Amino acid sequence: MFKRYLSTINKEAKYTLEYKKYLINSENKQVQSFFHDLPINFNKNEGTVNMIVEIPRYEQGKFEISKKLPYNPIVQDTKKGKLRFINNIYPFHGYPCNYGAISQTWEDPRISLNNKYFGDNDPLDICEIGSTNVSKHEIGDIKKVKILGCLAMIDDGELDWKLLSIDINDKLSDKLNNINDVDIYMPNLLNNLKNWFQNYKLPMNKPINQFAFNGEWLNKNKAIEVIEECHERWKLLVSQTETENATNDYPTAYNTTLIDTPLYNKEPINFTSENQFTGKDNNKPLEVEEIYYYK
Amino acid sequence: MFKRYLSTINKEAKYTLEYKKYLINSENKQVQSFFHDLPINFNKNEGTVNMIVEIPRYEQGKFEISKKLPYNPIVQDTKKGKLRFINNIYPFHGYPCNYGAISQTWEDPRISLNNKYFGDNDPLDICEIGSTNVSKHEIGDIKKVKILGCLAMIDDGELDWKLLSIDINDKLSDKLNNINDVDIYMPNLLNNLKNWFQNYKLPMNKPINQFAFNGEWLNKNKAIEVIEECHERWKLLVSQTETENATNDYPTAYNTTLIDTPLYNKEPINFTSENQFTGKDNNKPLEVEEIYYYK
Repeated sequence: MFKRYLSTINKEAKYTLEYKKYLINSENKQVQSFFHDLPINFNKNEGTVNMIVEIPRYEQGKFEISKKLPYNPIVQDTKKGKLRFINNIYPFHGYPCNYGAISQTWEDPRISLNNKYFGDNDPLDICEIGSTNVSKHEIGDIKKVKILGCLAMIDDGELDWKLLSIDINDKLSDKLNNINDVDIYMPNLLNNLKNWFQNYKLPMNKPINQFAFNGEWLNKNKAIEVIEECHERWKLLVSQTETENATNDYPTAYNTTLIDTPLYNKEPINFTSENQFTGKDNNKPLEVEEIYYYK
Repeated sequence: MFKRYLSTINKEAKYTLEYKKYLINSENKQVQSFFHDLPINFNKNEGTVNMIVEIPRYEQGKFEISKKLPYNPIVQDTKKGKLRFINNIYPFHGYPCNYGAISQTWEDPRISLNNKYFGDNDPLDICEIGSTNVSKHEIGDIKKVKILGCLAMIDDGELDWKLLSIDINDKLSDKLNNINDVDIYMPNLLNNLKNWFQNYKLPMNKPINQFAFNGEWLNKNKAIEVIEECHERWKLLVSQTETENATNDYPTAYNTTLIDTPLYNKEPINFTSENQFTGKDNNKPLEVEEIYYYK
């Protein structure tokens, strides 16, 4: 579901520390940043926005947009030098929906909810719940989605909004216009998804995640408000210098299209199809197959 | 998890009408029948038996031991000439457990439950619920499992027992000794699995499946009794001639190890590694990704 001039390129095999997926401009072969260069394409009236798929449904590798590497490729997250995987939380297989980020947004760690929970320093997270009329999802796919609502997850004391959306091409998209419609056409999904977010770190011996707003799914208007705010904070992020961002441990903001920003680079890396890794994926470690059961 | 002298060979690509997986004796390269030649290896005291994996957990192709083709390879079931797939019944991805058959068993269509539901003319079906200490499952894998219980499903008016088991190498195997232990270590599994069996044909516009015994999961002793009976009925099946079986639409009983049976063949097809298909799997049709929601 790409804009015609955008594509991606794989560097090295999936499930390795070296794996990277870059966004590129397929006309001039210049690298782009998923985080900063991909337009947010936010239409407040339609309630639509661009989503980058980092973890396709059922995938177990914890793939995410790198905050450190220039031009923010998608990489597999690591913990103590080892690749991170999503555990199977019964009855789910890997990630329970298509999961990813909204480009050109940032949860600013200086902004808080109730003066208590501060932004997690990441682009906004978004879930996409469609399953029809779209090709099988790949890491780095870009799709236009309709916003349905959001959940205010608190992860390790940080605010980590989870937006909810559906691909505008899905056959249920016309019927789902706000959070309350989801229970009608997809019974149990909202509750199951919230439980999954609550429990998914338990296998790593972490506590359950908490939620603000009494753990309730909030409606489309609230979600749109969150996107607006995080898009504004992103504008601040890209207006800062490399030193400012590095000092504060903010994401790197190298880009190849935002000509008015300090980290705009008009002569970035060029990737041709020769740079594309075409070998086989690595195998996942065997222990990743384990299923975890919680009441 | 093969006996040392057994292996399998693929003919043609997965997700094609031509796909077949044969069991072979890796020493003399002779074909064997999953249905008839693979020993049941039934130990009543231990409550263990051999299972053939037809559909690994999460798989969507409806693979099954052919009743018609000589030597009973595993093929993908068809309906009106089209490949059959398992739909995604929310929140499950494909098949909810490792699913397959017990060799050397047969649900004889002449035998009934309550003089009402007659056997479905297939080998006994069995679910395996482990997820640890075993390699990722492939179609045609053979594993030794511990019997835990069973469910008397009625499919289209026919009796279609679903046995429940766990791989003896799974780390929970020592803790699960009967049907009531499952709810302790795998909460919700029994109820979810029953609901899945009830609903999984709804996307094909078929009615929900029914169950005998008030839809209750029955214990290990009942399951062992069912296996014993179906193993006895299988002995009758393989003692019959080709004409008798064909006339009654019973499964073909060609075999290469049961020397006292009419359909024993001492000079069957030999397969060498040159016969192994090594190309890529076909893609699943896109519509197979759709998720179906039921209350």
